[in-house]
Amino acid sequence: MQHETGRIEAFSDGVFAIVITLLILDIRAPQQTPGHSLWLELGRQWPHYAAYVVSFTIIGVMWVNHHHIFNHLVRVDRPLLFLNLLVLMVVSGIPWTTAVMAQNLAVSVDAGLAASVLYSGWMVVYALCFTAFWWYVTREGHLFHATVDRAGARGTRVRFGLGAVAYPIALGLAFISASLTLIAHALIAAYYAANQLAIPLREPT
Amino acid sequence: MQHETGRIEAFSDGVFAIVITLLILDIRAPQQTPGHSLWLELGRQWPHYAAYVVSFTIIGVMWVNHHHIFNHLVRVDRPLLFLNLLVLMVVSGIPWTTAVMAQNLAVSVDAGLAASVLYSGWMVVYALCFTAFWWYVTREGHLFHATVDRAGARGTRVRFGLGAVAYPIALGLAFISASLTLIAHALIAAYYAANQLAIPLREPT
Amino acid sequence: MQHETGRIEAFSDGVFAIVITLLILDIRAPQQTPGHSLWLELGRQWPHYAAYVVSFTIIGVMWVNHHHIFNHLVRVDRPLLFLNLLVLMVVSGIPWTTAVMAQNLAVSVDAGLAASVLYSGWMVVYALCFTAFWWYVTREGHLFHATVDRAGARGTRVRFGLGAVAYPIALGLAFISASLTLIAHALIAAYYAANQLAIPLREPT
Amino acid sequence: MQHETGRIEAFSDGVFAIVITLLILDIRAPQQTPGHSLWLELGRQWPHYAAYVVSFTIIGVMWVNHHHIFNHLVRVDRPLLFLNLLVLMVVSGIPWTTAVMAQNLAVSVDAGLAASVLYSGWMVVYALCFTAFWWYVTREGHLFHATVDRAGARGTRVRFGLGAVAYPIALGLAFISASLTLIAHALIAAYYAANQLAIPLREPT
Repeated sequence: MQHETGRIEAFSDGVFAIVITLLILDIRAPQQTPGHSLWLELGRQWPHYAAYVVSFTIIGVMWVNHHHIFNHLVRVDRPLLFLNLLVLMVVSGIPWTTAVMAQNLAVSVDAGLAASVLYSGWMVVYALCFTAFWWYVTREGHLFHATVDRAGARGTRVRFGLGAVAYPIALGLAFISASLTLIAHALIAAYYAANQLAIPLREPT
Repeated sequence: MQHETGRIEAFSDGVFAIVITLLILDIRAPQQTPGHSLWLELGRQWPHYAAYVVSFTIIGVMWVNHHHIFNHLVRVDRPLLFLNLLVLMVVSGIPWTTAVMAQNLAVSVDAGLAASVLYSGWMVVYALCFTAFWWYVTREGHLFHATVDRAGARGTRVRFGLGAVAYPIALGLAFISASLTLIAHALIAAYYAANQLAIPLREPT
Repeated sequence: MQHETGRIEAFSDGVFAIVITLLILDIRAPQQTPGHSLWLELGRQWPHYAAYVVSFTIIGVMWVNHHHIFNHLVRVDRPLLFLNLLVLMVVSGIPWTTAVMAQNLAVSVDAGLAASVLYSGWMVVYALCFTAFWWYVTREGHLFHATVDRAGARGTRVRFGLGAVAYPIALGLAFISASLTLIAHALIAAYYAANQLAIPLREPT
Repeated sequence: MQHETGRIEAFSDGVFAIVITLLILDIRAPQQTPGHSLWLELGRQWPHYAAYVVSFTIIGVMWVNHHHIFNHLVRVDRPLLFLNLLVLMVVSGIPWTTAVMAQNLAVSVDAGLAASVLYSGWMVVYALCFTAFWWYVTREGHLFHATVDRAGARGTRVRFGLGAVAYPIALGLAFISASLTLIAHALIAAYYAANQLAIPLREPT
């Protein structure tokens, strides 16, 4: 049986909105230490601020893309419902990988490496799940709005999949520096924000 | 007085979305221990990852089923409003039973048994509340959409109730192993995901 | 300027859904203590379970009533927007009063008394804010749906205000026992759940 | 490509609702200290209550203004989507600046000064982001509803920008007293609540 997209969008929006807002819970008010100024204590938390900004941007871009695809769907079926849940399960894990990243970024080379591999690897998992979602949607195109060019949409799969290659590269950068990895993720998010993969529409006949 | 279903769905979606997202708060960034690699510390948290995946899936399936039933309702009345609140109260407790499960899964046989009984018992409570909800909805069928076959829907009650038997079985498994219990819950969720109880529709005359 | 009610309902539903779900964060997975069974540790947390059930029910009833009033409004203006924010500010404080109640319920007579007075006093504040909200709505009735009997709605104000008297009585019970106070709040919520104040509608002419 | 405003409003409402509700998580149930009454312990937390009320009001007013602008938009484009994300990123940080403020308000002059500068500085950042949002919206006015007077809306930019001057003044007050800063923010919020900048509408011809 097929349902309309309204409630799945509302549920997904809810999850995205909560995940993006939970990120702030990892930034604490620093504990008072006698003889240290609050500014110094606040300054020491810089990896948490950097990780917050990068992860907030990434989740924001993820939401925009999710939003963009659903704008072209008119129906959902059960497989889509569960592929969407899978995507949300990975997205919901980002506050955790972000916290691990922030806590280990500036501690030691080893810890920074492990945290960067986890952070980037998680994004690779996300890219794989989102690609699976997109392949399912474009395979038959039976859920698309009538205005979508189904063959054209199927043609975007390879380019879409190539986009996911950027995350393994960021994963490779983990072996150089944790800060560099975070900067790479910020750049990937900025790239995706600026260059959205267009869903081809039918030419009016 | 009877209301439309829009706002109760929005409220329920909100609660489901928040509960499913709060699960991640139980997975912490591990504290630094000198001389231990971060990977080892992350690996030690495996019961938390396992519990996260299973509970996320379960709540996701619960949401899909809730969504499915409301798709066939056009009105809500006060008893339904409160039966729905009861269901949500039990769902909102899952992050807690999940945390107890994750924390005790691999500690000792006794702790694992207690945690498994709590986790499974909570699901039994959920199944009872959801069954009560479904019995109320199907008793008169006065809230159903005109396309629903009311007599047919009433006929699903026994099968629906039988489904709830799976949870007591998982509860029984608790006496063998906590990990086994968690696997059983994952399988039950997968079963429900694949085999949704169809709500019978009227044949067009 | 007057707006439609859709977005204020969505925002309020969001706040209600989050507040009601945050209640569970106060129930922790108990820490392991060698030589104590997990059941014992779980049992010790009974005040947290009792407070969870009562506060969840109360917030649920508050949401139902909020929902009920907005069902009869077609417009919102700025004073209503801010009276609504005031109501939400008090509702958002309930997880805190609940936590104080749960933590002090069974500690000592003094602590239980203070926590009960806080818990009940907070409900009195809520009742006052909600009454202010209702008085504003019924004063001119300019925001009501055309089907509402404006004079009749204004006539409910006194009875509505009398309902708020129940909370001060619960506050008085605080001086006898904290558990009794919690039971009184459960009964008040059950009463409001069963006996909703009807908003009078115009007789069709 | 341009989308409708429904889903971006739902997502933004979700973020605002979560942020405003997370504020309460900073107010804890005080730990028991033998020989101290619970009232005393509760009373000691006064900076947390003050910061809660002020920040709740500020976020509420921010939501009302966000709501007000979107009421006059019929379309969103990509730059708007990302400017909106930027605004939400800053709003989501308020629970953190609130916690820093509450924790340092009454500790020492130095800590209070630093916390006040952070709290006020964050609001300046918010004002700048929101002004950027408003400048983008009014520059061409291509996203406005047909009823909006585009030239008139562009004319509000300077007054809108001037409003942001209030926050730097509050920042200056930080050097006198942290409590005074908090009071100033409450007054600014009250001012914005009472004097909303009207979006000029076209005169019907």
